[in-house]
Amino acid sequence: MSAQIIAIDAMGGDFGPRSIVQASIACLSATPSLHLTLVGQSSLLEDLVSGFSAADRARLQILGAAEVIGMDERPSQALRGKPDSSMRVALELVRDGKAQACVSAGNTGALMALSRAVLKTLPGIDRPAMVAAIPTRTGYCQLLDLGANVDCTAEQLYQFAVMGSVAAQALGVQRPRVALLNVGTEDIKGNQQVRLAANLLQGARGLNYVGFIEGDGLYRGAADVVVCDGFVGNILLKSSEGLATMVAQRIEQTFRRGLLSRLAGAVAMPLLKRVQADLAPARHNGASFLGLQGIVVKSHGAAGVEGFQSAIQRALIEIQENLPGRLHGRLEDLLK
Amino acid sequence: MSAQIIAIDAMGGDFGPRSIVQASIACLSATPSLHLTLVGQSSLLEDLVSGFSAADRARLQILGAAEVIGMDERPSQALRGKPDSSMRVALELVRDGKAQACVSAGNTGALMALSRAVLKTLPGIDRPAMVAAIPTRTGYCQLLDLGANVDCTAEQLYQFAVMGSVAAQALGVQRPRVALLNVGTEDIKGNQQVRLAANLLQGARGLNYVGFIEGDGLYRGAADVVVCDGFVGNILLKSSEGLATMVAQRIEQTFRRGLLSRLAGAVAMPLLKRVQADLAPARHNGASFLGLQGIVVKSHGAAGVEGFQSAIQRALIEIQENLPGRLHGRLEDLLK
Repeated sequence: MSAQIIAIDAMGGDFGPRSIVQASIACLSATPSLHLTLVGQSSLLEDLVSGFSAADRARLQILGAAEVIGMDERPSQALRGKPDSSMRVALELVRDGKAQACVSAGNTGALMALSRAVLKTLPGIDRPAMVAAIPTRTGYCQLLDLGANVDCTAEQLYQFAVMGSVAAQALGVQRPRVALLNVGTEDIKGNQQVRLAANLLQGARGLNYVGFIEGDGLYRGAADVVVCDGFVGNILLKSSEGLATMVAQRIEQTFRRGLLSRLAGAVAMPLLKRVQADLAPARHNGASFLGLQGIVVKSHGAAGVEGFQSAIQRALIEIQENLPGRLHGRLEDLLK
Repeated sequence: MSAQIIAIDAMGGDFGPRSIVQASIACLSATPSLHLTLVGQSSLLEDLVSGFSAADRARLQILGAAEVIGMDERPSQALRGKPDSSMRVALELVRDGKAQACVSAGNTGALMALSRAVLKTLPGIDRPAMVAAIPTRTGYCQLLDLGANVDCTAEQLYQFAVMGSVAAQALGVQRPRVALLNVGTEDIKGNQQVRLAANLLQGARGLNYVGFIEGDGLYRGAADVVVCDGFVGNILLKSSEGLATMVAQRIEQTFRRGLLSRLAGAVAMPLLKRVQADLAPARHNGASFLGLQGIVVKSHGAAGVEGFQSAIQRALIEIQENLPGRLHGRLEDLLK
C-alpha cells in the first residue's frame, strides 16, 4: 500500500495541541504507511514533539501557521480575518495535493466554511454534509446532516442520501439501507421537504431506499444510512449524548448508595464502563464532511486522545477507499 | 376537595381495554374523590369490570360507544367517518361538562384532530401542542411540541413557550426557566423560525426566558420548559426512547456473558432496573394537549397499566390546578 499523508490542524479542540500530538504519534506507530503534517504554532509544536523518540516522529512534519481560530469565533471572521490560521493552512495542503486529508478538532462552523472556500464542493453538490457513525442495536448507522445545514431542501436531502450511501459502502456495508428520518413511517407523515425527498429517493436508480424511519428505528438498527436536515441531526446527536451521560451518572450514583450497592458496583462498573464507551459516538468517532473535493474529518471538540485517533483512522479509511473519487463518480451517474 | 370526573377512552392503545380498566380501578382506589366514565363497547367493558368488587367500581360508569378508531387510521377518517367512536364520545363528555378531562391511549393524530374539532382551541391559540415531562439530571423538563405540529411559525413557538410555562407552574415549578431548543446557544445559530421566536420571547412580560438550549443541555436540566416544533420534538423523544432501550439491552447482554458477569448482574440488575424505569418518560408519563378548551391527556400507546395510571394522574392534577382556566387567563394577558 502506498503512503498516506494527513494534515492535522494541531491547534483546535478543547484539549489543545498536547492531546493532538499524542494521538498523532500513536497513529504513526500503528500505521507504518502514514505520514502526518502537524500545522500550528511551530515553537509550541516542536516543544511537544521533542518529548518523543526520533523513531516515533520519523514520519511527522511540522508546518508553521501563526493564527488560531477560536472555538467560538464566527465562521465569517475565520474565513476573512485569518489567512494564516492552522485550520486554513491544513486545508490548503489538501487543496495543493501535499496531503490527502485534513483532520481538525476545531470550530465546526469555521471548518465547514473554510473547507468549502478552500477545497470547493463536488459538481452537483450544493452544500457539504456532516456525517458520523452512530451505534445501533445491530452495528452502526451513518447519520447525516449533523448540523452543517440547518435548513434543507428536498433536493439537498436527496444529495445527502446519495452521499451517505456511498460513504457507508466505502466503510464496508454492501448494499446500505437508506432511510429518511421522519415523525412516522406512513407516506402522509412529515413536512413537505421530507415527503418531496421521499419521492426523489423512490425514483433513484441503484439506491437501496427503505422509506421513512423514526427516532427509535434508528437505534433499532433499521437502516445503515439515516438522512435528516442539520437542525434535526444536531439535536438528535446532542440529546443522545446528553441522555447517555445522564444514564451513566445515574448508574454511578446508584452504586454509591449503601454498602451492598457499593459492592455490586465494584463488580458491575467495569462492565458498565465498556457499555458506556460504546455509546459515546460523537466523542469517539470522527465526523466526515461529505461533498467536498477532498477529505476533511472533524474530531469532536471534547474528544480526548482516543477520539482524535479515531478521527485520523476515519480519514485513513476514506483515503484508502478514495471516498471523494467514489462520490464524484456516483454523483455524475445519479445527479446529472 | 370536590369530585373529579374523568372520561376514559377505553378502546385505544396497543394493550387494549383490559389494561385500561385495571389502571382505572387502581386510580379509583387511590383517589376517593375521583369518578371515571369508561367509554367503549358496553358488553366488553361490563365483562371486564365485573371481575372487580362492587366497592372497587362504585365510582365507575360505563358509557357505550359502538366504534373504535384504529391505531393506524388517518385522522381525517376518524374525524368524518366515525360519529360514535369511543374517543369522540369521551371528548364530547368534556365538551358537555359531564367530565373535566379525557384520557386516551389511542391514535395520537386522531385524538388531536378530534380534540380540536370537539373542544376547540383557546382564544389566541392557532394549534394545540403536545407536552410531556422528560427526566433530566436535576428533575424534569416539560418538552413541547412532541409531534402535533410538524411545521411551526415563530408565533406558534412563542405560544408553546407561554403554554409550557403555565403548565410547568401548575405542576409546581415556581418560576419556570423557558428555553428554545436550537443547534447552538449563540444568537446567530438556528433557523429563521427559532431566531424570530427568540426575539418574541425576549420581549415577553412575566416569562422567564433563558435563551437557546442544545440537546445535551436539555438532559443536563438547564431549563424547566423546552420549546421546539413537533418534528424535532417527536424525533428527540423517540430517539431518546430508542437509545434508552438499546442501553438497557446492552447492559443485560453484558451481564449474561460468563459466570462472573452473571454474578455481578444478579446483584446489579435490580438497581439498574430502577434507573431504567426512571428513563422511560414517554411510556411512564402522560402527554397533555395544551391550548384546548378542556383537558386531554394522551397515554403512550405502548404504556402498560402503570403508564395509563400516570396519565390519569396527570389529568387529575390538571383538573385540580384548573390548567385550561389558567392558560386562558395568561394568554389573554400576554397575547392580546
